[in-house]
Amino acid sequence: MLRIVWVGVALLLSAGSIGAAERPVAPNGIAIYPDYMSWKVVAPSYREDKGHIRIITGNEIAVAGLRAGKNPLPDGSVLAKVAWKAEKHPNFPVATEPGAFVQVEFMVKDAKKYKDTGGWGFARFVGNELKPYGKDANFVAECFGCHIPVAKNDYLFTKIVKTP
Amino acid sequence: MLRIVWVGVALLLSAGSIGAAERPVAPNGIAIYPDYMSWKVVAPSYREDKGHIRIITGNEIAVAGLRAGKNPLPDGSVLAKVAWKAEKHPNFPVATEPGAFVQVEFMVKDAKKYKDTGGWGFARFVGNELKPYGKDANFVAECFGCHIPVAKNDYLFTKIVKTP
Repeated sequence: MLRIVWVGVALLLSAGSIGAAERPVAPNGIAIYPDYMSWKVVAPSYREDKGHIRIITGNEIAVAGLRAGKNPLPDGSVLAKVAWKAEKHPNFPVATEPGAFVQVEFMVKDAKKYKDTGGWGFARFVGNELKPYGKDANFVAECFGCHIPVAKNDYLFTKIVKTP
Repeated sequence: MLRIVWVGVALLLSAGSIGAAERPVAPNGIAIYPDYMSWKVVAPSYREDKGHIRIITGNEIAVAGLRAGKNPLPDGSVLAKVAWKAEKHPNFPVATEPGAFVQVEFMVKDAKKYKDTGGWGFARFVGNELKPYGKDANFVAECFGCHIPVAKNDYLFTKIVKTP
């Protein structure tokens, strides 16, 4: 009976796209959050310089905080920015849509742990192999440097979309 | 005691952005789905001709069907396409982000009920007033006409994004 239960647990775990054992980890210790595509939408975005089309999603703490206008966001907030190659729709070229997956990036709020980088831990996982970005933990200097111009918005470029 | 319960229910209902009593209804009888921003992401898109940036979300039936590669999608599938004015980010103009809300559109699958329009019922709600689009039920001819070139993809322009 116990064996049947364990087989059931194993099958449930393998049904997700990324199992716990194989989760990539960034050089600063942040592991990928495998459920980021199930989180609520924060906003879409389009980067014409990179040729990327993106969505930003957030976990429950982040989305609730953003909707309530909290600045800074509370500890436990996690945001994911997912990028795909931007492609013209073959049947409708005035529309740009996602092609191949490029990367997923995370910002993880912990005011104490990440106090040197605005309270945010950064991580990036690149390509279909989800290869962690950065040679060592200093890679975050590049991430944080780019976010300094939006320090007043809790270091976030993205604002949550508004709907009536 | 019963009164306290009812007050609680009323407060819960009014916490949503659109109450059941005030839900706009399209001329073909499709009422707005108020929870479309809580649905999972199907894809982002960018319409350079309209200057819109969009996300497409889907209810559980639609997203499960799309992930399983079902064509046509099963009855009960609902997709929402939400459009905002596309604006350059003030701190970072190579990024285009959502500005003011433009509209939300729905495609509702019921193979029998909507058999004349590919099994899809269409609806559009415009602006912050969520004004139903169309003078009468014939407005769907315009919607469906535009979707005919993608008949082989169950009349859907959007494909669900892929992530590793």
